[in-house]
Amino acid sequence: MCDYDDELYHERLPDVCGALGAKARSCCSTSTLKRMLPVYSWLPRYKPKYLIVDFVAGMTVGLTAVTQGIAYGAVAGLPPVYGLYSSFMGCFLYIIFGTCKDITVGPTAIMSMMIYPHVSGNPDYAVLMCFLSGCIILLLGLLNLGVLVRYISVPVTTGFTLAAALTVGSGQINNLFGIQSKSNDFLSAWINFFGHIQETRRNDAILGFGTLILLLIMRKLKDLPCGCRQLTKYLSLCRNVLAVIIGILLCYLLSRDTEELPFRISDKITPGLPPFRPPPFHTVDAEGQPLSFGDMLSHLGGAVATIPLLSILECVSIAKAFSKGKIVDASQEMIALGFCNLFSSFFSSMPITGSFARSAINNASGVRTPLGGAFTGILILLTLAFLTSTFGYIPKATLAAIIISAMLFMVEYETIAEIWRAKKRDLVPFVATALSCLFWSLEYGMLVGMAINALFILGKSMTPQFQLETQKHNGLELCLAELKGDVDYTAAEYLKTTTVAHVTEQTDTVRLMIIKGPEIRSIDATVALNLISLRDDLQLLQCELICWNWDIRAAGVICRLQRKARSMFWFTKSFTELLEMIAEGRNNKCDQIACDLSQ
Amino acid sequence: MCDYDDELYHERLPDVCGALGAKARSCCSTSTLKRMLPVYSWLPRYKPKYLIVDFVAGMTVGLTAVTQGIAYGAVAGLPPVYGLYSSFMGCFLYIIFGTCKDITVGPTAIMSMMIYPHVSGNPDYAVLMCFLSGCIILLLGLLNLGVLVRYISVPVTTGFTLAAALTVGSGQINNLFGIQSKSNDFLSAWINFFGHIQETRRNDAILGFGTLILLLIMRKLKDLPCGCRQLTKYLSLCRNVLAVIIGILLCYLLSRDTEELPFRISDKITPGLPPFRPPPFHTVDAEGQPLSFGDMLSHLGGAVATIPLLSILECVSIAKAFSKGKIVDASQEMIALGFCNLFSSFFSSMPITGSFARSAINNASGVRTPLGGAFTGILILLTLAFLTSTFGYIPKATLAAIIISAMLFMVEYETIAEIWRAKKRDLVPFVATALSCLFWSLEYGMLVGMAINALFILGKSMTPQFQLETQKHNGLELCLAELKGDVDYTAAEYLKTTTVAHVTEQTDTVRLMIIKGPEIRSIDATVALNLISLRDDLQLLQCELICWNWDIRAAGVICRLQRKARSMFWFTKSFTELLEMIAEGRNNKCDQIACDLSQ
Repeated sequence: MCDYDDELYHERLPDVCGALGAKARSCCSTSTLKRMLPVYSWLPRYKPKYLIVDFVAGMTVGLTAVTQGIAYGAVAGLPPVYGLYSSFMGCFLYIIFGTCKDITVGPTAIMSMMIYPHVSGNPDYAVLMCFLSGCIILLLGLLNLGVLVRYISVPVTTGFTLAAALTVGSGQINNLFGIQSKSNDFLSAWINFFGHIQETRRNDAILGFGTLILLLIMRKLKDLPCGCRQLTKYLSLCRNVLAVIIGILLCYLLSRDTEELPFRISDKITPGLPPFRPPPFHTVDAEGQPLSFGDMLSHLGGAVATIPLLSILECVSIAKAFSKGKIVDASQEMIALGFCNLFSSFFSSMPITGSFARSAINNASGVRTPLGGAFTGILILLTLAFLTSTFGYIPKATLAAIIISAMLFMVEYETIAEIWRAKKRDLVPFVATALSCLFWSLEYGMLVGMAINALFILGKSMTPQFQLETQKHNGLELCLAELKGDVDYTAAEYLKTTTVAHVTEQTDTVRLMIIKGPEIRSIDATVALNLISLRDDLQLLQCELICWNWDIRAAGVICRLQRKARSMFWFTKSFTELLEMIAEGRNNKCDQIACDLSQ
Repeated sequence: MCDYDDELYHERLPDVCGALGAKARSCCSTSTLKRMLPVYSWLPRYKPKYLIVDFVAGMTVGLTAVTQGIAYGAVAGLPPVYGLYSSFMGCFLYIIFGTCKDITVGPTAIMSMMIYPHVSGNPDYAVLMCFLSGCIILLLGLLNLGVLVRYISVPVTTGFTLAAALTVGSGQINNLFGIQSKSNDFLSAWINFFGHIQETRRNDAILGFGTLILLLIMRKLKDLPCGCRQLTKYLSLCRNVLAVIIGILLCYLLSRDTEELPFRISDKITPGLPPFRPPPFHTVDAEGQPLSFGDMLSHLGGAVATIPLLSILECVSIAKAFSKGKIVDASQEMIALGFCNLFSSFFSSMPITGSFARSAINNASGVRTPLGGAFTGILILLTLAFLTSTFGYIPKATLAAIIISAMLFMVEYETIAEIWRAKKRDLVPFVATALSCLFWSLEYGMLVGMAINALFILGKSMTPQFQLETQKHNGLELCLAELKGDVDYTAAEYLKTTTVAHVTEQTDTVRLMIIKGPEIRSIDATVALNLISLRDDLQLLQCELICWNWDIRAAGVICRLQRKARSMFWFTKSFTELLEMIAEGRNNKCDQIACDLSQ
């Protein structure tokens, strides 16, 4: 996916930062500063040669952002220009706080669809939601809750990427053919496409497919074994911008002599920059009645919780998808996203997050640092101020081709093959994530995948590493059990039934069961209760239970539960010593050797 | 809670059966027979002296079942007699298939509330639902899915019991005071009670409190240090039946000379046994139009899945609550519950499950074996046939006092104290379960508790047992890492960041990182990818990564992922040998020592 070395930006820095971050989160050292302001790490080492790449990528993303912004404003049920208002501030702030060079923050299809039912045509709700969303995400980030992202495994990320690429790409298929009708889901997009296929516009389809083929060829250009490598490399990088310029030129030239435009273009937008003002804490309803902050909150309802969470999930999963196994500092991503939303709300923005499509285009255009975002932001501001008429000429088919070609290279074919080779079982969360993302929803699908993956951990906790063997020492037949790792309540019954079954099978000759457990760090109340009940059950079978050399923490749980249970625990230097003490202790009832566990 | 020795019924049998069951589920031996038909284990050893206790308990439960049955029939939106139709078949079948002596199967408040919206006044839907529910539960039980009950820990069970006792007890507070208005939730019951407190009826309140005090005193009777222990013990056991007889007598005597009854009594019911007929697979709607099986299914909708699941959850959690740490064979419980529903549906029953209130009364009455259920069942049949008028005189206040006194001794005060002493952290799932059961719903509250408890396991999986130390051998500074237990994807980042941070802190003198891992059974694709990326990251720090003596299964995952990674794995007999080979191998690039991992 990423064709360029990223030694500048990723070069071991996020890893070390991540590791240190956990330790030194609160101390105000240079490393904390570097961590909280990633720009501090990369900007001093910025080289002029990166500028051209970042410029090209930023402009390419900017061109997409303009058109997508307009579309998403409409999706949210607001005047289209609100999509553009939402698009620029995130780009600027992410430069300072963001950790992933590829991510572009702005309005997305999912965020727009989420806010739509709460807006009722009044932009004030969307802007307030953006502000609240920013506050919540920032708070969660500062609380370092990004660590929870570790529950998103590689198979889940891969499944999400596959599904997201297919969904976003399929959403553009109608535009590629010049079909008016639109839909955002994978399935409905194709149903819609085949239902309206007879409405295909020849001009748009030719432009769309032509652009797509041109983009694919130009992507391969840099691999050509010719002398002028530098030139072909830059041509390859500029392919998206070239496609847009060709599209605008064609549209302009072919429409000079006629009233009608040759291709379908984006909707018209109102020119002018958004006003700078605090988010609205009160508004008026459709009848002009004033509504307080409380009224607005109750109107937004559950969205106050779900929109920030979906926003985080979308942004962090994109960061994970682009990190290619590098560690993502999710808390820092959340801080960045929080600031982006917070400040954007002062420019009449609706809730924003990382955009999968634009981040993919950014990556495919070879962006080197988050500085690319500056050019995207400037382009959007310029568009709002002066260029609404020029950018009005971007054919939708051109944009569809750019997005589809980015999506084709988004899918991590290699990782899918790796999962297949490494561990077949990991295909389950991958397939589950992909299918539920495709046929249900991108965010909930990811949660489904995470839940299914978590079931593996929970399932494994039912059967701890527990070995039982019967041994004979000096005529004394005893059963020695070894227990490794931690034991959770899910394993309590397994331990008990396995032990009782083993002792029962030994045809009543085993009089002693020894459980070794120096490596058990901790047990919970359920396991403790079950072990005490196991001792009672074994006593009925005339078998004594001894816990030998247990970790003091685990032993403490049982002894605090039942003082009498202290006699179960024996501590000796060697197994021979234990056997000797048992031989003596049997006569002396030497409970006193159980060390003091009262702490 | 249980005052009597249960050597007959629980005596180690379920434990051994449970352990063997997992192994020998499919073989048709005597142990399988014993397992599938628990009656086979206890009936041959049944002693005549148990009969009187079982009879008293069965009759006491029966008296409650009659009144509750009538109430729950009405709750489900059906003619009240359907509650009685649902009450007897489960009692008989549970004797044969049930594993828990205390459980009484029949209609419950929750099941009635669940079926209510799907019935629309037509009993055919309820009976079909009972049949379908039986089939589904039986199937799940035969598939041995009861093992999933291991995810219900002791703190969750204790929290559920506390909340259930409070909910069921609070639901009776209005009846105790003779207040007409009724509500089933904990909170709404008390709001309702204080809202209608001025409607308290003096007669009912006196009878209710008098009965309650009598019951509590009689419960203590058996502990009296007097000569006639046997007599006081039986008096103590019969206390609930005595209370009912006193209530009926008082009601009868006081109403002889007046038209009006002195106490509030249950609603009138239609006499007569239910017909035996297959469940209805077609019906007619309110307008008399015929409805097919498909129409009925689509009318029942999601309830076809939720009702069986809630039924299982309710029954198994009650079994767990009464087992006091003994192992519950949940699959067998499901088989029993499945048969109960299946056969009940032939007697016009609505969906049934284990009843918490009646099981508690059963236990408090000192039931010894499931045979008590036979007397309950016979009493209900007799009531239907002849006794509707007699049992019409049971005052509601008497029944409320019986239920409340059973609930008081249901709460596991001792276990709560044990959890507090053993492990404070386990109070979290306990409190979460109790609160969400009380203020949300009993079943969903239990799921909340299970989810929160599962988070402990998931949380712990983030930090595996991983120790790092720097050592010096023959001038070679190396970092030795020990990894114990399994490593899940959640730990992948922790391993990587910890290792990189440790190597970075060593001020660039460590050139070798050795990860010991003989005890790692398996790793997943995410961990494998992270280890490969860790090797690359360490190479940037001029440090080589060696995985020493890893389990072949874990090593295999990484090697299948990347053939080149085979050189990471070294296998030697001792650490000295490893150091020697490293010293030689460094010059010879001896990749060949990595054993063949292609399997």
